[in-house]
Amino acid sequence: MLIGRDELGHRSETVRRANLSAIVRELHESGPLSRSDLVARTGLTRSAIRGLIGELVAGGLAIEGPAPLDGTPGRPSPVVRTDPHGAVVIALEIAVDSLAAATVGLGGRVIDLVRIDLPRGKSSVDDIAIALAGLASSMRDRLPSEDTIVGVGVAVVGVVRRSDGMVSLAPNLGWRDEPLGQRLAAALDVDVPIILANEADLAALAEHRRGVARGIDDIVIVWGSVGVGGGLVVDGEPLTGSAGYSGEIGHIPVNPDGIPCRCGSIGCLETEVGSTALLRRAGRSPEGGHDAVDEVLAAAEAGEPRALAAFAETGRWLGIGLAGVINILNPELVLLGGRLTASYPFVRASLEAELDRRVLRAARGIVRVVPASLGVDAPLRGAAELAFEPLLSDPAAWLRPRQPMVVLATA
Amino acid sequence: MLIGRDELGHRSETVRRANLSAIVRELHESGPLSRSDLVARTGLTRSAIRGLIGELVAGGLAIEGPAPLDGTPGRPSPVVRTDPHGAVVIALEIAVDSLAAATVGLGGRVIDLVRIDLPRGKSSVDDIAIALAGLASSMRDRLPSEDTIVGVGVAVVGVVRRSDGMVSLAPNLGWRDEPLGQRLAAALDVDVPIILANEADLAALAEHRRGVARGIDDIVIVWGSVGVGGGLVVDGEPLTGSAGYSGEIGHIPVNPDGIPCRCGSIGCLETEVGSTALLRRAGRSPEGGHDAVDEVLAAAEAGEPRALAAFAETGRWLGIGLAGVINILNPELVLLGGRLTASYPFVRASLEAELDRRVLRAARGIVRVVPASLGVDAPLRGAAELAFEPLLSDPAAWLRPRQPMVVLATA
Repeated sequence: MLIGRDELGHRSETVRRANLSAIVRELHESGPLSRSDLVARTGLTRSAIRGLIGELVAGGLAIEGPAPLDGTPGRPSPVVRTDPHGAVVIALEIAVDSLAAATVGLGGRVIDLVRIDLPRGKSSVDDIAIALAGLASSMRDRLPSEDTIVGVGVAVVGVVRRSDGMVSLAPNLGWRDEPLGQRLAAALDVDVPIILANEADLAALAEHRRGVARGIDDIVIVWGSVGVGGGLVVDGEPLTGSAGYSGEIGHIPVNPDGIPCRCGSIGCLETEVGSTALLRRAGRSPEGGHDAVDEVLAAAEAGEPRALAAFAETGRWLGIGLAGVINILNPELVLLGGRLTASYPFVRASLEAELDRRVLRAARGIVRVVPASLGVDAPLRGAAELAFEPLLSDPAAWLRPRQPMVVLATA
Repeated sequence: MLIGRDELGHRSETVRRANLSAIVRELHESGPLSRSDLVARTGLTRSAIRGLIGELVAGGLAIEGPAPLDGTPGRPSPVVRTDPHGAVVIALEIAVDSLAAATVGLGGRVIDLVRIDLPRGKSSVDDIAIALAGLASSMRDRLPSEDTIVGVGVAVVGVVRRSDGMVSLAPNLGWRDEPLGQRLAAALDVDVPIILANEADLAALAEHRRGVARGIDDIVIVWGSVGVGGGLVVDGEPLTGSAGYSGEIGHIPVNPDGIPCRCGSIGCLETEVGSTALLRRAGRSPEGGHDAVDEVLAAAEAGEPRALAAFAETGRWLGIGLAGVINILNPELVLLGGRLTASYPFVRASLEAELDRRVLRAARGIVRVVPASLGVDAPLRGAAELAFEPLLSDPAAWLRPRQPMVVLATA
């Protein structure tokens, strides 16, 4: 490998790698682009772009070809796109009552996706790791060629340490301090990076890259399942906090005299807007789970006053909690995701009323609250984005060698 | 000006400017460094560093000279330092009951600082702008040479839009939607950038660059004066939000059934931990201001039970509010700044107890709460850092020409 230096003192190999990264990231996030687009977006010269695209095409990460016809007269200029089979990631998800797996190609296209039910109640970390490894294995078998897998991303309904995938707390799974990352690494039998993160953090990443929050740099997602999670994007980047534990919007204290939370605290936002509170207020069994919540939704759609009142109360507390988040972060967009997306029409009025009352006027004038757009698969899509990060940061390390490498013996 | 391109397609002028920026930022933030230090910190070659330092020395921003003797045998290698008179900023502050001004040299040394009382009650924006311009003018008169002023930074006790210095809300000054930035620009009569921001945001920046939070990348400051503000640093960078309105920790709803806040909401953190609440609980007149708070502090130091109980209650609510902030942001360090610094010993126990109860265990294991270190001048120091930003981002634009510039007439 040639390592030179340019006249300005940079190692040229470092610069080349950074430039390859900029191009692959643009293509992955924005889709097919012409060479002129790439010149404009990266600030590199046309000849540098030509050389770098040549490397990416030869290395199997990009394809250059005619642009789709758009009715404009004249010969269309060719576009560069990612090769969706040149690099593939496996995305896995541990949700409250399901496990899911997907293969996603560079550029974001979902190649394959399965979701299976997970019996409610305690599952051991080993059971889950083995079940996920089974799903991953069937995904790999259905790929045309296995050698293009570049990473594994895992979304977890719990508090996850980014560095090693240790799950500090996952009340829905009955887990505390479980070494999920380590067990998955043993079960999966792959030699690519495995990265774990919280489901709501990954939903935020997915909505920012591929959903309704695309192009918006300061976003908050509230993710409702049985509990309530949250994910943040600040200045265009996921906000992970110092160890990956950020975004726990469900555990903002909103009602100091409220009821005990599964986390050990009292009066957390989750105790007022989780599905248990909704079911209790709607006069249903608090342990009814998603099916019971769907019944309350149907009742609200039919205009049943008690169901409507239950959602209105959810919205009121959601507004109180989000007012604090908005006063702290000054976001442009708040997304209601997961199970909260479907309740949006019924929580909207009371939620907005609390924001009107409690958010400082300057920040209130900016923020909009909208339903999320990627549905229940948003965390899985985000897990795929996370799994692509090592490749996006340094695609040179993944380029297929154009010819057999010659290794020189040294000393 | 020479604009070439390197072999990798970068405009070499762009690269030169970025490299100058990296070096000046290192020297400004870290103090004197040897050439070897700069090679290690910037990744540039020794010869590139030599050339760039030559430019900075000739342009008046840096000085190269012998290192201070440290007792190590052998000839000390020379160090590079910023020239504190090569670039100077004016920092201004509008606090609750005072105005302040300082001149600060590149590298962060405070050259001169004055603070004057501001009568409590309503002052018009024009009055304040004129008073600040007077302070700034006296600062400039005391500088050896005026032509080195490169920026003005202004800390304001209010909610400030970063783009133009519009003050959306400053209850202590009785302001709403006041065009402070515009009025200051008219009054100051300088041809350098004037940047305004919230006092707590700037205190966070100062503590991160020059105080106890140095080297720590995820911090939160709670800033107590009459009201309660906050400032955030995330991943080493100030978190401003989409328009500069972030960090309003004082307006997190903590007590939904609480008392009205000056912002128009109910039960904000400020209503429970501001000086009014403390004085009320300590049995003093709630309008007593800083002097009355000092009396309660003295009483607490003397062991008076009612004063101690009042601070304990402040600590309890502070813990409730901060628990939410910590669960959202997963910071490493929380600083108590402004008037809260002195109360730290008396709020500590109840604050930590609430954090133990309400912060998710994983995040709790990481975060420490400590008193801030830069005292009442932290916002002013932060205003200076803000004012240096344009220069730090592109020092080439501020280099003194080595010889008279020749302007060629075109067309």
